[in-house]
Amino acid sequence: MTMQHTSVAAVQPRTELAETLPAAFQAVETLLVDAVDSEVAVLRDASRHIIAAGGKRFRPRLTLLAYAAVGGEDPNHAVPVAAAVELVHTASVVHDDINDHGVVRRGRPSVNALFGRTFALLTGDYLFTKVYELMAPYGDLNILLAEGTSALVEGETLQAAAVKEGNFTREVYYRVIALKTAALFKSAGAMGAKLAGGTTKQIDALANFGFNIGLAFQIVDDILDLIGDKEQLGKTAGLDLEQGRGFATAYAQEGAEPSLDDKVNAIKRKAMEGDALNQARTQAHMLVQQAINELEILPPSAAKDELANLAHMIVDRSF
Amino acid sequence: MTMQHTSVAAVQPRTELAETLPAAFQAVETLLVDAVDSEVAVLRDASRHIIAAGGKRFRPRLTLLAYAAVGGEDPNHAVPVAAAVELVHTASVVHDDINDHGVVRRGRPSVNALFGRTFALLTGDYLFTKVYELMAPYGDLNILLAEGTSALVEGETLQAAAVKEGNFTREVYYRVIALKTAALFKSAGAMGAKLAGGTTKQIDALANFGFNIGLAFQIVDDILDLIGDKEQLGKTAGLDLEQGRGFATAYAQEGAEPSLDDKVNAIKRKAMEGDALNQARTQAHMLVQQAINELEILPPSAAKDELANLAHMIVDRSF
Repeated sequence: MTMQHTSVAAVQPRTELAETLPAAFQAVETLLVDAVDSEVAVLRDASRHIIAAGGKRFRPRLTLLAYAAVGGEDPNHAVPVAAAVELVHTASVVHDDINDHGVVRRGRPSVNALFGRTFALLTGDYLFTKVYELMAPYGDLNILLAEGTSALVEGETLQAAAVKEGNFTREVYYRVIALKTAALFKSAGAMGAKLAGGTTKQIDALANFGFNIGLAFQIVDDILDLIGDKEQLGKTAGLDLEQGRGFATAYAQEGAEPSLDDKVNAIKRKAMEGDALNQARTQAHMLVQQAINELEILPPSAAKDELANLAHMIVDRSF
Repeated sequence: MTMQHTSVAAVQPRTELAETLPAAFQAVETLLVDAVDSEVAVLRDASRHIIAAGGKRFRPRLTLLAYAAVGGEDPNHAVPVAAAVELVHTASVVHDDINDHGVVRRGRPSVNALFGRTFALLTGDYLFTKVYELMAPYGDLNILLAEGTSALVEGETLQAAAVKEGNFTREVYYRVIALKTAALFKSAGAMGAKLAGGTTKQIDALANFGFNIGLAFQIVDDILDLIGDKEQLGKTAGLDLEQGRGFATAYAQEGAEPSLDDKVNAIKRKAMEGDALNQARTQAHMLVQQAINELEILPPSAAKDELANLAHMIVDRSF
């Protein structure tokens, strides 16, 4: 066991963080690539295809910043945990693209599109097994990550079930995004804080911070799916409406004519004409503010500032 | 951390094992059902559908017996680990049935057939997340299970890749079954021994025992796929040849006419006429003997006898 339970008094000076954190981010990237070095070529190639495609890396960033903000002394110690969180997300993305027939992801062909359904399914599974491997030395942190991962799968399932049953209401929408997105952000924040030896209050604060920016992130993602530019998004846009999900569906379909031939366009028009988009934007901003409030109990630090920046980035992005 | 590193001198008397072990097996069953109590109905129902269908439970049995044979004092301590190994297997079965379009499993409709592809994929993922959760308190054992799980996915992938490339040779066949089946049996044996505080020699012996019976298990499985009775097997038989894999394919296709319309029947005829079946049977028996030889270093115990029985059961089964 390598978990530290040191005092949290020593918060890194800003200059030091500016040096150590970029190195830790780079170490996450290196570890992601190294972790999937399978002897089976297609697993290695498909895993590296999706990893190299990039993505915003919000989740590992959150883990590393939470670790630093609570006074964690060696960011390298948090690197495997940060990489594991990103791999959970990556695995889920690969599997989502199978279920949604998504052909573009992060501006590149999806694993599904490039390697076929069978290998995409196995690649997602493989990425999940690498999560175990990376997390093996981290004891109780596994409970936190398991919670987030399990919730993610539950959220995806709840979404698919509600769509199938024509029951994708606002209430279901919020339950879905809490499970499929916010829970893993929560784990990412909580694990960083716990690994740094944070107090229960600090761990809870960073868990709540993660949860709230996770909700905001998903709402913004859904807005961008509706009005975003496909090129900029780097993935198939408009999927939510086609598949009868996302906040616009939840907001707009209540009252929409179910017998319309072009239901998708009807819902989209209703969402754009009505107040749904504005409501969603307002909500995302409120959630980010709530998240930032959670940071109040932390001592001032560069990492704390960066967490606030991260929260703002999540709502102010166009892709 | 709850791992024990006790002395291994105290081997359970046979009468005691006869009492505690059935209770531990029952506890595994209960835990399997309890672990998948999702608030999302379809995940709970699909998971319990495949768990309740039974299966032979060789892997959790191996973990519990390895634990007892090395002198582990509280079988309940090994129960979550045994359940986790079975869940890895169960998750892989659910995903295999998607990729293979298997419609019958354990005498019941596959998850795929009953709940559809999307929910089957998510159910497999969900089962994987429950493995994390169960294993969280078990420290280094996670490394052993991660190795077996990762190998399993690699083996399935290697098999699919070789079939696709028309390269399913004998050499590939043995690499495939070592990865997709024997590695998890190896983890099951090694974890039981390690958890009981076994010596490195004992852990290695039970890892090798598991590996060898795992190879034998898969060879027998492939024989049964070829000649077994569908009703008795409780799953779709003959899939291997249809999908261009299994030992018969590996043995018989070398030299078979690739231009034959009915390639499947040609390979089957060749395997049945030739010596492939006998060779495979002989090999399975040899592997079981090798496995039993590994047990020599263990002190006499009821658990040791049961391990030998388990090895024999694996080759002498008709389903």
